[in-house]
Amino acid sequence: MEPFIIHILGCGSALPTTRHMPSMQVVDCRGKLFMVDCGEGAQLQMRRAGLSFAKLSHVFITHLHGDHCFGLIGLISTMGLLGRTATLHIHAPRQMQTMLAMQMDFFCRDLGYQVEFHEVDTTVQAVIYEDRSLTVETIPLEHRMPCCGFLFREKPSLPHIRRDMLELYGIPVSQINNIKAGQHYTCPDGTVVPHSQLVTPADPPRSYAYCSDTRYMPALAQQLQGVTALYHEATYAADNMLMAQKYYHSTAAQAAQVAKDAKAGMLLIGHFSSRYTDENILLQEAKLVFPETYLTQELQTRTI
Amino acid sequence: MEPFIIHILGCGSALPTTRHMPSMQVVDCRGKLFMVDCGEGAQLQMRRAGLSFAKLSHVFITHLHGDHCFGLIGLISTMGLLGRTATLHIHAPRQMQTMLAMQMDFFCRDLGYQVEFHEVDTTVQAVIYEDRSLTVETIPLEHRMPCCGFLFREKPSLPHIRRDMLELYGIPVSQINNIKAGQHYTCPDGTVVPHSQLVTPADPPRSYAYCSDTRYMPALAQQLQGVTALYHEATYAADNMLMAQKYYHSTAAQAAQVAKDAKAGMLLIGHFSSRYTDENILLQEAKLVFPETYLTQELQTRTI
Repeated sequence: MEPFIIHILGCGSALPTTRHMPSMQVVDCRGKLFMVDCGEGAQLQMRRAGLSFAKLSHVFITHLHGDHCFGLIGLISTMGLLGRTATLHIHAPRQMQTMLAMQMDFFCRDLGYQVEFHEVDTTVQAVIYEDRSLTVETIPLEHRMPCCGFLFREKPSLPHIRRDMLELYGIPVSQINNIKAGQHYTCPDGTVVPHSQLVTPADPPRSYAYCSDTRYMPALAQQLQGVTALYHEATYAADNMLMAQKYYHSTAAQAAQVAKDAKAGMLLIGHFSSRYTDENILLQEAKLVFPETYLTQELQTRTI
Repeated sequence: MEPFIIHILGCGSALPTTRHMPSMQVVDCRGKLFMVDCGEGAQLQMRRAGLSFAKLSHVFITHLHGDHCFGLIGLISTMGLLGRTATLHIHAPRQMQTMLAMQMDFFCRDLGYQVEFHEVDTTVQAVIYEDRSLTVETIPLEHRMPCCGFLFREKPSLPHIRRDMLELYGIPVSQINNIKAGQHYTCPDGTVVPHSQLVTPADPPRSYAYCSDTRYMPALAQQLQGVTALYHEATYAADNMLMAQKYYHSTAAQAAQVAKDAKAGMLLIGHFSSRYTDENILLQEAKLVFPETYLTQELQTRTI
C-alpha cells in the first residue's frame, strides 16, 4: 500500500515545556508532505524527523494562535536560503495573509520562490485541496477564534490485478489498465474472463482528520464518520472540565466520545496542557470511552 | 564573587541543523538575566537551560536577520501567558519596532505587561543600559545590514573587608561600609588603622563582549581592550574565506585575531556554518592565533 504516515512534530499546547513542542504535524501521503499547523521550531522538527523541505508544498494552519503558526516565517525563510524555487502554498484563515505579507516583506525580500496564500473559510466544510489521489477538506471547529481542522481523504483507488490470472490466460501487459478500470478480458479464442476473476478488491480509501483546537462538538462525528484515524485535541483531563469549557478546549474523554461516535479506526490525542507531567491520565480517561486511543509524542510516526 | 555566567542557548547560523539552534545567549550578571539575540526556539531553550522568564527584563537584538530575532514574538507571547506584569525592554535596531508592533497587535492583544522598545543606533559606541553594577554598550559591527554587538561591563566594585582585622581591632559592623568606601578606622584609644590594612583589593571588574554577525574588523580590538571574555562569530574556516568576505562574516582565525589584538582573557566562537559537521577545524584554526579559544555549544555555560 502507498504510504500514509503521520509525523508528529509537536503535541504540546501554548506553553512550551521541555517535554513538548507546540502542536504541529506532517502528513506524508504517497510521498507528498503536508504540514498541519506550524508552531515555533517547525523547521527544526522537520530536520529532526528527517523530512525533506522540498517535498513539502502545502501548509495548513488551523487558527492564528501563536503556538500554531509562529514557526511559519522561519520555515519560509529557511526554504529560501536552501534555494527553493517551487511555490509554497499556505492555507490559513484570512487574517494570516496580512500578517504573513508584513513578515515576508520585512524578512524575506530576496525569496527565490513564490508563497501563495489560500484563504480558508473556517465556518464551512469544503474541499480546499485536491490532487490525483487525495482531497483535503475543512472541518469547522469551535474555538476562541476562527478555527478549523483538516480532513485528508484518499480517493478510491483501482482494484489490484491478479498476476496469476495474467499468466493463466496469457493476458498482455497492455490490457492491465483496461482491466483495472473495470473491463472483462476476451481471450483470442473468444472466451470472456469476467473482470471480477482478474482482480482483487481495491484498498479501501484511508482518511485522517486533524482537529485542534476545539471545544467538544457532538456534531463533529457526523463529518468524520468512518475516518481511519482521528487526531483530536485533549488538552485537559476530566479534573479540568471547567478550564476546557472556559478556553474552548476538550477533555480526553470528550475527544474519545467524538472518536466513538464517528466510528473512527483509531484516536490520537495531543495538545496536552503543560500542567500534566504524565499524560497517562489523559490516555486512561480516553480509553474508557474509546479503547483504540494513543498518545502522540514528538518525532513519533503513525502509519494509517 | 557575584555570578557572571554566559548561557549559550544557540550557536548555529541561519540554517537550522539537528546539531545547533540559531545564535542566542543569556548573560546572567548577579542574578539578573539579559538575553542577547533571540532566534527561533529561544523560549524553549530558556526552559531547557532552567532559566527564569521572570528574571529576564532586557533583550538585546544585534540585527534583524531572522536567525537572530524570530524567537522574540513567541517569548513575549509566552511571558504573557505566564502572567508577567513587569515591563520587558527590547533593545534593537529601529526597524524592529515596526515589525514587533505589528506582530504584537496581531498576536498579543491581551498582554498583561508592557513591552518597551529602545532603539539602538548600531553605528556608534554608546552605553545603552546601566544599573547599579553593570553597563551595556553597543559595539558597531559590519554586516550586510545595520548590526552591533553588546559589551557587558561590571562597574568597579568596593574592596573586600578583612574579617580578621575587624576582630583584631574590635571594629563595629556599622563601620564596614565606611571602610569599604575608603576610610581609615580610628580606635577608641585614638590609634588610626589605615584603610589599606583593613581591606583586600576589590575584584577587578569583568566584562563580556558579544560580537555577531560581522566581517573581520581589525579596529574592533580597540573598543574591546582587556575584555575578560569575547564571543566573536566564526562562521567559516579558512577554506571559506571568500564566503566570509562575500557575506560579511568572519573566519575562526579572524575572530582569534580580534581576541589577540584586544588582549582578551578568552575567546568563545560560534555562529557556525551548517556546512561544518565537526567544528574542531574552526577551533584548531583559532587556537593557532589565540590559544584560549573555546567552541560554544547549546546549553553550555561559561563563568566569566
